[in-house]
Amino acid sequence: MVFEVINKLDNIRISKLKIGDIEVETPIFMPVGTQATVKTLSSHDVWDLGYRLILVNSYHLYLQPGEDVIKKFEGVKKFMNWKGLLLSDSGGFQVLSLSDIREIRNDGVVFKSFIDGSIHFFSPEFTVKFQETLNVDIMMTLDVCPPYGISEDELRKFTFLSIDWAKRGKRVKEDGKGYLFAVIQGGLNLDLRFKALEELEKEDFPGYGIGGLSIGEPWEKTKELLQNFVKNMPENKPRYFMGLGDPISIMDAVEVGVDMFDCVYPTRIARNRTLLTKYGKLRITKSEYKFDDKPIEEDCDCYTCKNFSRGYIHHLFKAKEILAPRLATIHNLRFMYNFMENLRNSIKKQKYYEFRKEFEKDFLKNFKREKVNFGEWVYNILWNKNWYK
Amino acid sequence: MVFEVINKLDNIRISKLKIGDIEVETPIFMPVGTQATVKTLSSHDVWDLGYRLILVNSYHLYLQPGEDVIKKFEGVKKFMNWKGLLLSDSGGFQVLSLSDIREIRNDGVVFKSFIDGSIHFFSPEFTVKFQETLNVDIMMTLDVCPPYGISEDELRKFTFLSIDWAKRGKRVKEDGKGYLFAVIQGGLNLDLRFKALEELEKEDFPGYGIGGLSIGEPWEKTKELLQNFVKNMPENKPRYFMGLGDPISIMDAVEVGVDMFDCVYPTRIARNRTLLTKYGKLRITKSEYKFDDKPIEEDCDCYTCKNFSRGYIHHLFKAKEILAPRLATIHNLRFMYNFMENLRNSIKKQKYYEFRKEFEKDFLKNFKREKVNFGEWVYNILWNKNWYK
Repeated sequence: MVFEVINKLDNIRISKLKIGDIEVETPIFMPVGTQATVKTLSSHDVWDLGYRLILVNSYHLYLQPGEDVIKKFEGVKKFMNWKGLLLSDSGGFQVLSLSDIREIRNDGVVFKSFIDGSIHFFSPEFTVKFQETLNVDIMMTLDVCPPYGISEDELRKFTFLSIDWAKRGKRVKEDGKGYLFAVIQGGLNLDLRFKALEELEKEDFPGYGIGGLSIGEPWEKTKELLQNFVKNMPENKPRYFMGLGDPISIMDAVEVGVDMFDCVYPTRIARNRTLLTKYGKLRITKSEYKFDDKPIEEDCDCYTCKNFSRGYIHHLFKAKEILAPRLATIHNLRFMYNFMENLRNSIKKQKYYEFRKEFEKDFLKNFKREKVNFGEWVYNILWNKNWYK
Repeated sequence: MVFEVINKLDNIRISKLKIGDIEVETPIFMPVGTQATVKTLSSHDVWDLGYRLILVNSYHLYLQPGEDVIKKFEGVKKFMNWKGLLLSDSGGFQVLSLSDIREIRNDGVVFKSFIDGSIHFFSPEFTVKFQETLNVDIMMTLDVCPPYGISEDELRKFTFLSIDWAKRGKRVKEDGKGYLFAVIQGGLNLDLRFKALEELEKEDFPGYGIGGLSIGEPWEKTKELLQNFVKNMPENKPRYFMGLGDPISIMDAVEVGVDMFDCVYPTRIARNRTLLTKYGKLRITKSEYKFDDKPIEEDCDCYTCKNFSRGYIHHLFKAKEILAPRLATIHNLRFMYNFMENLRNSIKKQKYYEFRKEFEKDFLKNFKREKVNFGEWVYNILWNKNWYK
């Protein structure tokens, strides 16, 4: 893995990330292929949209199709026929957000499958081994994401547990099988974040995930934390904000030096009939689009915009046609791709602040950050059910 | 419209059907694009699969997006961006099968929308006018499909009503706006069929639909009726069996001289996880395919088979991914395309009977004619809701 910062503007960086034959530029947005497909798309569709690095979810792939199938296919790239780079999460986040947690122990998490209710155990060692089986390029250490609003004691406990798990994961990591990034927790506590970074840097991880943010806390506080924290992260390693995907939040994070992003945001809202445009979000099922023969965006170069009208896509959604979420996903992912490319170009030309101002002028007409309710969810699981004790 | 029989073998015919710039060969299978999309596919996908003539349903398009939208887009081809030929049905069949019928009158059918319960009226004149608005190449007259098992009196009544409606439709048909085919009813009563044909031929329709068959009656009786009837239809006009789509039934009908077929069969069973292969039907969700790294068919030239394994498609269906019905639809439609092409080639080489024997040797291992029932429909509708989660 080669990671090289090639351009800077204040804390903002442009970098080249190269693994094997494939090179990408950061800041980068990675679409999420949860169950070995970016929903509605084949691997070739995603490649044709310009993407070379996407994410898959360990938790989902572990439960379905399962380790034995992935082994038989020698990894998920061959399984889904993806020629690009893959990053997998550890599964820790989904264990917390999608499962009945039975127990968070010092050596891992016991949980119930959301599919058939069967009981499973994720240890920090197993999740690394499993990601090696996935045969991905970048993998993440197992962590516990402390919900927003828990006590400082508990926050500290989960942060240190995540540090310990990162180290334990690294111990079993086999050389030559992808790159293991550590996840930094610590909530909004800057000292805890620094402590976590310091501890993890002793192990010299090749990159870091910034976890436990954008989970329900006020975004202004997140920005402040990022502002003070990210610039102190190692200059020569990728910084990956896990689970962030709207253009405005991405710009906030890019400004303080974050390199990598993933989120289901653009693909999920697409299936939910919402399109990203220069003028913010466009809810295509509104009656005003019924007769509209213009494309979603006049100057968009995506397959959907080059071939179909708003009126047709409006109809497809109304008629509950499977083609509808597909055409919407294609547009939103191409929108995000072009947005990131324009953003990078503006940095290279040292015109980033002008780019942001210009972008926001129209985009903010129809955009609000969406409230993430993950925090509440996890909070319920951990506190009301007392399973963590 | 040019229709020319270019090759014969007993009662079997190869013909060229040319409308505008586009020429197709019959016997032809037409995929169904019910709501202005062949489910899961864009117009370009269908074109790339080799098809140049597809069907749309007047009933569905009338209710959604509605006449005003279709008018605004100057027809359904422009609306769905389809460069090929289009055939529309009259809506009569869906009025009977999908709606609460309020009244069948001499001048048309009063029915309730399956979408919002609103009351509508289809007259034989209106359905022709509506199909002109759809701006299709081939349209069908309004008919009443007499259910299998009704009294001879009733059968006669509906058959003559359909004759009358065909004539009334023709009276309002505008020249230069597509070609209006008449639907011949008559159930299994050969005399009634002849009578209908005789009456309709007085109006010199450019082609004929054979309606009211394959609706639950024993297939042997259908074959016998076809055997005696089709050879007496005008030699120089297309003969279109409405709603037939499995390879075996198609061969039975081709042998007595039918030229055109349409059916949701290959696309519906695809969404229902069933793939068409040389060895008959393959239910991809069976556990035996979980680890299978072979394509659906080794020698298939479709996108799905060239890129993905049975194991991957098995997983996509199990995981309820939207990509699953799409990949399955692509395969099944390409299977049907190749099947029809091979069938035509065998006729041209006067080797049809050898072709059928060879085809059936493997195909019949996993094939039985299916009766279309409403259970399947409901299953489909329920399942589609999952795509929007």
